[in-house]
Amino acid sequence: MGATRVIETLVLSLLLLLSGSSATQRKKTRAAPRMPCKQMVFYFHDILYNGENAKNATSAIVGAPAWGNRTILAGQNHFGNVVVFDDPITLDNNLLSIPVGRAQGFYLYDRKDYFTAWLGFSFFFNSTQHRGSITFAGADPLNKTRDISVIGGTGDFFMARGIATLMTDAVEGDVYFRLQ
Amino acid sequence: MGATRVIETLVLSLLLLLSGSSATQRKKTRAAPRMPCKQMVFYFHDILYNGENAKNATSAIVGAPAWGNRTILAGQNHFGNVVVFDDPITLDNNLLSIPVGRAQGFYLYDRKDYFTAWLGFSFFFNSTQHRGSITFAGADPLNKTRDISVIGGTGDFFMARGIATLMTDAVEGDVYFRLQ
Amino acid sequence: MGATRVIETLVLSLLLLLSGSSATQRKKTRAAPRMPCKQMVFYFHDILYNGENAKNATSAIVGAPAWGNRTILAGQNHFGNVVVFDDPITLDNNLLSIPVGRAQGFYLYDRKDYFTAWLGFSFFFNSTQHRGSITFAGADPLNKTRDISVIGGTGDFFMARGIATLMTDAVEGDVYFRLQ
Repeated sequence: MGATRVIETLVLSLLLLLSGSSATQRKKTRAAPRMPCKQMVFYFHDILYNGENAKNATSAIVGAPAWGNRTILAGQNHFGNVVVFDDPITLDNNLLSIPVGRAQGFYLYDRKDYFTAWLGFSFFFNSTQHRGSITFAGADPLNKTRDISVIGGTGDFFMARGIATLMTDAVEGDVYFRLQ
Repeated sequence: MGATRVIETLVLSLLLLLSGSSATQRKKTRAAPRMPCKQMVFYFHDILYNGENAKNATSAIVGAPAWGNRTILAGQNHFGNVVVFDDPITLDNNLLSIPVGRAQGFYLYDRKDYFTAWLGFSFFFNSTQHRGSITFAGADPLNKTRDISVIGGTGDFFMARGIATLMTDAVEGDVYFRLQ
Repeated sequence: MGATRVIETLVLSLLLLLSGSSATQRKKTRAAPRMPCKQMVFYFHDILYNGENAKNATSAIVGAPAWGNRTILAGQNHFGNVVVFDDPITLDNNLLSIPVGRAQGFYLYDRKDYFTAWLGFSFFFNSTQHRGSITFAGADPLNKTRDISVIGGTGDFFMARGIATLMTDAVEGDVYFRLQ
């Protein structure tokens, strides 16, 4: 989640197992197994507050180690920085597309010798297509592609389990990169 | 998770699926299905530290964006505030009832244009009735009722899965509201 | 997670249920049940940044209540302190053994009248033996042994569920203790 960059776009490709282990569904599942898996792809866009972009920023540094502050990501690969975000989710890689939901939660940088992050966040949908939330958590080694776990869901995604793959889509100058 | 309010009571109504997907239980489950679901209702009470109520406070602001501080919730709908809490859990909506456990963890405000929160916390029980913990995580849109996911459990709640519904019970002046 | 101590070693003993509730595995499981459980023991070592040990520190205080700072854990049993860590994982209790992975994430102290913590972290493995991550979350009452939940996994630990038991191994002076 970009060093001096302030805008980034991430692609989240989602493999969901819906209600697969619900006891109330088990009998029915056995008789006529439903397709429990659902593959979805979403883009979300992160613009980090840098002291000047209060209007556009979708995330802000809220925790920093003793050697850091809250407008510039800290040295040592941002170790210790905690960022809260509320990013629009779109169906393509265009920041200006109409959002279908919000990605809300936090990430923190947790390695001194190179970038790694730990994320806890939810996709929150309130549209005609999807209603409910999917919650994710896990380590993000910031490799080209990296997997995080689906740890819960509500609404349409009640009892969801599965995995999400995050990818960097592209980088535009110092202030924009997307993930695919 | 009240703006200028410092005390609030929340109702958490819990639908638990206990050990439903435990492999060691599966055989037994098939032969004679146990009732895997458990419905419980708890109240918990949050008193936010405001610089003056150190004695009574059950929560404190520990992270804030660059434009905030740690005794007053920040502007822009508290975006970026991180709050750690240790709230007593009671079986009714009376703050002074004997606690049956503690609700411990954190929440953070993650939206600039209206209130939404993201929570990670556990109910920790150490009484004759319940022993163990239930861990929750997820987005809280701060609607009238909102669902968060059960992501794990220990002790009596080993391998718990399910869903919890949070509700605002009532508001008393500027310093007290309950959730139902 | 030691008061004035800056180095500690924890033992995490892990009981994993791998892919046990995966729908795609269920048929096969019924015909010829695989051993779904895996028991593992790991040690991890935490050296908290105290303002002077920047080189060796594996964790740093990144959030503190209004009455605290980021180089000394706060009064009132560190209530409100948030610590980000990146600890080496070893197979024995020797801090200097070759790490088999990293324990990365955060913990926060969430009780004023005695020590309790809430953890969210992942074990991240990238060795010949294990590849992938296991993610944990839950309350840590800081008893002699305490259980936290496995909330997800990736790679070799895809869809993992289970429980982890944390134990204090030993204390060496004021600056070192291990957990077993």
